[in-house]
Amino acid sequence: MKSLQTHLTDERIQSVLSGFKIGLEKESQRVTSDGQLATTDHPTSLGSRSFHPYIQTDFSETQTELITEVFDTDKGAIEQLEALHDVIVRSMENDERLWPISMPPDLPEDDRDIKIAKLENQGDINYRRYLAKVYGKRKQMVSGIHYNFEFSHDLLLNLFQIQNEYNDFTSFRTDVYLKVSRQYLRYRWLITYLFGASPFADKGYFMDQEPEQPVRSIRNSEYGYTNRPEIQVSYQTIKQYVSDLEKLVDDGELIETKEFYSSVRLRGSDNVEELLTHGVSYIEVRNIDLDPFERIGIAENTLRFLHLFLLTLLFLDEESDDAKLMLDLGTDYNNKVSLEHPLENTTLQKEGEWLLERMIQLNSQLTAPFDCTDLLDEVKKMLVNPSKTLAGRMLELMLEKDWTNEEFGRYFANLYYDQAFAKPYQLAGYRDMELSTQIFMFDAIQKGVKVEVLDRVDQFLCLSFDGQVEYVKNANMTSRDSYVVPLMMENKTVTKKVLAKAGYHVPGGKEFSTVAEALISYPIFKDSPIVVKPKSTNYGLGISIFKEGATKEDYDEAVRIAFSEDDSILVEEFLPGTEYRFFVLDGKTRAVMLRTPANVLGDGRQTVAELVAEKNKDSLRGTHHRAPLEKIQLGDIEQLMLKEQGLRPTSIPNKNQRVYLRENSNVSTGGDSLDVTEEMNDSYKHIAESAVEALGAKICGIDLIIPDSTIRGNKQDAQTYGIIEANFNPAMHMHIYPYAGVGQRLTMDVLRLLYPQLNN
Amino acid sequence: MKSLQTHLTDERIQSVLSGFKIGLEKESQRVTSDGQLATTDHPTSLGSRSFHPYIQTDFSETQTELITEVFDTDKGAIEQLEALHDVIVRSMENDERLWPISMPPDLPEDDRDIKIAKLENQGDINYRRYLAKVYGKRKQMVSGIHYNFEFSHDLLLNLFQIQNEYNDFTSFRTDVYLKVSRQYLRYRWLITYLFGASPFADKGYFMDQEPEQPVRSIRNSEYGYTNRPEIQVSYQTIKQYVSDLEKLVDDGELIETKEFYSSVRLRGSDNVEELLTHGVSYIEVRNIDLDPFERIGIAENTLRFLHLFLLTLLFLDEESDDAKLMLDLGTDYNNKVSLEHPLENTTLQKEGEWLLERMIQLNSQLTAPFDCTDLLDEVKKMLVNPSKTLAGRMLELMLEKDWTNEEFGRYFANLYYDQAFAKPYQLAGYRDMELSTQIFMFDAIQKGVKVEVLDRVDQFLCLSFDGQVEYVKNANMTSRDSYVVPLMMENKTVTKKVLAKAGYHVPGGKEFSTVAEALISYPIFKDSPIVVKPKSTNYGLGISIFKEGATKEDYDEAVRIAFSEDDSILVEEFLPGTEYRFFVLDGKTRAVMLRTPANVLGDGRQTVAELVAEKNKDSLRGTHHRAPLEKIQLGDIEQLMLKEQGLRPTSIPNKNQRVYLRENSNVSTGGDSLDVTEEMNDSYKHIAESAVEALGAKICGIDLIIPDSTIRGNKQDAQTYGIIEANFNPAMHMHIYPYAGVGQRLTMDVLRLLYPQLNN
Repeated sequence: MKSLQTHLTDERIQSVLSGFKIGLEKESQRVTSDGQLATTDHPTSLGSRSFHPYIQTDFSETQTELITEVFDTDKGAIEQLEALHDVIVRSMENDERLWPISMPPDLPEDDRDIKIAKLENQGDINYRRYLAKVYGKRKQMVSGIHYNFEFSHDLLLNLFQIQNEYNDFTSFRTDVYLKVSRQYLRYRWLITYLFGASPFADKGYFMDQEPEQPVRSIRNSEYGYTNRPEIQVSYQTIKQYVSDLEKLVDDGELIETKEFYSSVRLRGSDNVEELLTHGVSYIEVRNIDLDPFERIGIAENTLRFLHLFLLTLLFLDEESDDAKLMLDLGTDYNNKVSLEHPLENTTLQKEGEWLLERMIQLNSQLTAPFDCTDLLDEVKKMLVNPSKTLAGRMLELMLEKDWTNEEFGRYFANLYYDQAFAKPYQLAGYRDMELSTQIFMFDAIQKGVKVEVLDRVDQFLCLSFDGQVEYVKNANMTSRDSYVVPLMMENKTVTKKVLAKAGYHVPGGKEFSTVAEALISYPIFKDSPIVVKPKSTNYGLGISIFKEGATKEDYDEAVRIAFSEDDSILVEEFLPGTEYRFFVLDGKTRAVMLRTPANVLGDGRQTVAELVAEKNKDSLRGTHHRAPLEKIQLGDIEQLMLKEQGLRPTSIPNKNQRVYLRENSNVSTGGDSLDVTEEMNDSYKHIAESAVEALGAKICGIDLIIPDSTIRGNKQDAQTYGIIEANFNPAMHMHIYPYAGVGQRLTMDVLRLLYPQLNN
Repeated sequence: MKSLQTHLTDERIQSVLSGFKIGLEKESQRVTSDGQLATTDHPTSLGSRSFHPYIQTDFSETQTELITEVFDTDKGAIEQLEALHDVIVRSMENDERLWPISMPPDLPEDDRDIKIAKLENQGDINYRRYLAKVYGKRKQMVSGIHYNFEFSHDLLLNLFQIQNEYNDFTSFRTDVYLKVSRQYLRYRWLITYLFGASPFADKGYFMDQEPEQPVRSIRNSEYGYTNRPEIQVSYQTIKQYVSDLEKLVDDGELIETKEFYSSVRLRGSDNVEELLTHGVSYIEVRNIDLDPFERIGIAENTLRFLHLFLLTLLFLDEESDDAKLMLDLGTDYNNKVSLEHPLENTTLQKEGEWLLERMIQLNSQLTAPFDCTDLLDEVKKMLVNPSKTLAGRMLELMLEKDWTNEEFGRYFANLYYDQAFAKPYQLAGYRDMELSTQIFMFDAIQKGVKVEVLDRVDQFLCLSFDGQVEYVKNANMTSRDSYVVPLMMENKTVTKKVLAKAGYHVPGGKEFSTVAEALISYPIFKDSPIVVKPKSTNYGLGISIFKEGATKEDYDEAVRIAFSEDDSILVEEFLPGTEYRFFVLDGKTRAVMLRTPANVLGDGRQTVAELVAEKNKDSLRGTHHRAPLEKIQLGDIEQLMLKEQGLRPTSIPNKNQRVYLRENSNVSTGGDSLDVTEEMNDSYKHIAESAVEALGAKICGIDLIIPDSTIRGNKQDAQTYGIIEANFNPAMHMHIYPYAGVGQRLTMDVLRLLYPQLNN
């Protein structure tokens, strides 16, 4: 392939240079809390491995494999890998953790205790049995990261259009990937130097000889999981690559082509033969050790570096046309660097510096969002100071803490385990999204439903399972509801009209669209308990309640407040009783919730402020709606409320004295959410369910006022209940993680509504 | 029944006093443009009379009957009656009009030319044949208004709770309506005096004797359509009322109970016998003449007066317990007043003044919105000055214009006809609603689909036909679309992702949620034609187009403008070509529209300003989106645009010179809408249809950029088209009433989507 160097400065290339796609695969071993290989099966809550798109098992039953989808940013892949870790760790039973190092934990003495993955397909099991026989089970227990990389179509197409060597785009693209692969194999020692992270192996890995000192990467060395040296495949042309591989299989050297363990695999088809016709469309880089300092085994900066590295290799001219020579040199260099002491400078530092210079040059061509200057500064330091490399850092920490490799592994396994459970309602990688959506995504991923975030600000997901595509917004807006139903519920007047027509008790009232009209109508309401509220705004804004009727002055003020929130307002009859939220899905009440205003319970010892601080320690309480409950504040409103009770933050309430800090019961102002699904009289559930049916909704949060929930509710008896609102975007997280009572996994109910075929 | 007077000041009564329900029925004769009785059948476009809830025929085939639903305000009934008039007048063929006077137009000499209504039910026809025989066809041709009235349930319930005469609510309610009916019959002469409006009868009505002078109301006199004097029914008790009626039928005096033509009928059941068990639930007041000064035959003030009149009669003590005596007196008085000369004072003026005083007293108890002071002042004047009564006004106008009664009728028939066609895209009574909704309501009413406006500001309708209820918002949001689909279309990024995934060509681009991120990304776009736009705002706000690429300064400015409209913006590839709107419904392209910027065509004679004024005369052009097109403005933007072409408003363009006054093609800024449904190459319709299918939408406006519509479009060929937007709330009125080309009745398509069983 002719030099591409000169094209780098071409304007057409500039604008498309940074486009790419990546996908990650990450293996790790399941271990017990004391770092022993797990003896349990793959977690059953994860559904079937025969189709799970994200969570699989590799060689052994204990070796989980996490697979991301293809992304066009590093961040996208990192985020999904973060989420997959939350899902796998929270799905494992018996407090199991993931082993954070590429080299396996202590392996059992008896080979038979290393269980081959219990897959459904017998062929898959036989393949693993063959591998166990040829390489030994122990070598198969090594884990790592596979980095699948594709240049953007635009970049390759523009390069193709500029060059004049190839007439056929597919051939050009294939040769690009062949070149990059050759280059990668030639220079991969730099990756081993920087990111090699397997200095030791624990007991039970080495069957015969082993390195005498800590090294940069056992996994990438001759002690790692490699083919025998005789297994050689040419990267000169695609024809040679394919015919070499096929010959090795024909000769019985390999059982199938995927047994060829190169640091770079040419990809595009599972059938190697097809690479000749379809061409190579991406490459799989396989020599990345797990980074134990990262919960997910790899840092975003490592991905950025790999991207820039491959881009540099694409434009860099090859040292020689002799592919075999270069490949052998690369292997030599890599073996050497792998076995260097982690804290000693590498003998190849000079070549490293030269290569880094090429990367810096290329980086100067990249547009701002892709600028890697910071990263390259870092790598420069790593190159001269081996204690900044991964292996170097590992060794230094072990020395500092006086840890064995096993203790090191156990420490991080436990750390990451604790992190996964610290806020079990959040999903790492997507913590900026709404809580209900995070929990919903967790459930989907766990069950093997593919999730694509189409718009994260908008909480818009695309799900896919069994060939069935579903779009979901806010985790509760689905194709199962018809368009007019939420429009109807958005309009409180329309909702009431529809419910009243269907025979349900709703508060009477009038709607006003001008202040004058509302003010002049005071006489109609003057002696009745009323609620004045904006017609369509939610979240309790602009609402005034007059349980004893309003004076003219209060009424006028309430009208003005309500109009400040909306163009129309409602003046409604006030219904006395307790408000309950019924969450109805697919005709069934799935959860009933009672909300109480922010409060603390005295112990006769602590002050109000201390009690608040203590209550706020609950990990379910957070701020800005990223936790199921909000922390109780001690601001002006709360202090005023205390004052009205003759209290201050420094007062010490009596034992069992309930002190309220708010009048309103919103969870968003520190209120408690109490699940009462079990206790609630079925008669009210039936009313909620049939009212939601009358509205035609599949998913609905409907608020009932119930004066006395101990007596049976009756649709016809307005004394027993009243429906005050129906919500088409009902919060779900507060039901799933209530302050008290049993959590109701509503997100799973939504998932099953969409995919009734999900069977566990 | 004991006096209710004292309860009037009771607080419980005060707050519910003004509640009521009304429903109207209005007959009128269809006539030709020269005022002759129509000879055509009932219009076929109105669907079948066997179920039409709003438009029926009464006695003759030419006698239309318009029936409103039940409303709890006068305004509601008036508005619907307005709309029904627009529908019937625009549905009649051969330029027919409605005769505006109660007395029929010139009737044919031969009785056989008065055709009995061609109803489906043979019993209905036989009944009419019987009436023709007993009363003569001519008397049956008189038209009027029936006013159905019900006191609010709350008022009657509170009265019932306060009184101590009755133990049973139904009996109490029945006796309330009996009392009010007796009182109405006693005092109905006042209604005849004020609102009687049939001073003359045209040729062919009187078969024998006739009044010697103009009168207040032939219809309400002995010359009107009445039973023989022997037909007497008691209003003393419900038992007597029912038994009298049944005896008349048993004796063969009446063929059935509905042949009893009293000025007040007791209602509650079609079967009179059932009144004994179910009670009377409302009354039907039948002595209202058509008001020829009102397009719909009755003024809202007349309704307000009737309401107050009935409310007064409810609380007013009866003059005597002898029902028969009072009834006879009432009939006497009414006959007398009916035949008084319209311009002479009534002999009953004193009683009228006394009665009016009672009404004024009651009015003082009503809360503000129902205050009738203005109205009562008016009526006071009518009472002393007969030329202010309806009959008086009619006669004075005829004298002034030297019109015969026939000429008078023809004048108003023509006037109202012209009014109905002045803005055929609007629906009287609902002109404040969106145009598409007005047209949709027209279509629904025409086809006999019941329409209830649940919320007029929100354009929210409830339809009902054949027992099937449908909710519709904005005339295009229906239960046929699923909830996520519009949510998807609301988000331009999600829409593009879904379309791109399905293989459609959409402009490439990037989304930014911070200004900084957008600004730093300039290099990516610097040399490409781009569009910078807010992510979700519509109506073209905040959009900048750079067909030749943007300078850094222009780009920065465009980014800031877009961010002023939304939290996120898109920077997109600009696709060259012409933009077409495809309206796809139920998988089929129903309309294709090309929009051109505001423009005029020179004639070598008129100035730009004159050409604009002339173009603006088109009745399709209006302001504030209450017409299918907007008037062209000559503001700053338009003058600047002229200036750039070296023109001013006073310039005279050459013959056939097209002068554009705007850059943008929005109809809302005076642009022209050109229907090109027929001409558009089917290949593009197929692309639009399948793209809408990919989005999963039933109703969608999808915008395609087509560089050359003369060549076939190909989904795979990005050169032939690009999809730039999908709209879930597409305007329909511009397709129905385009500036040029054939109108596409999309509202009817939506109606048929909801009700495929509509068969004409």
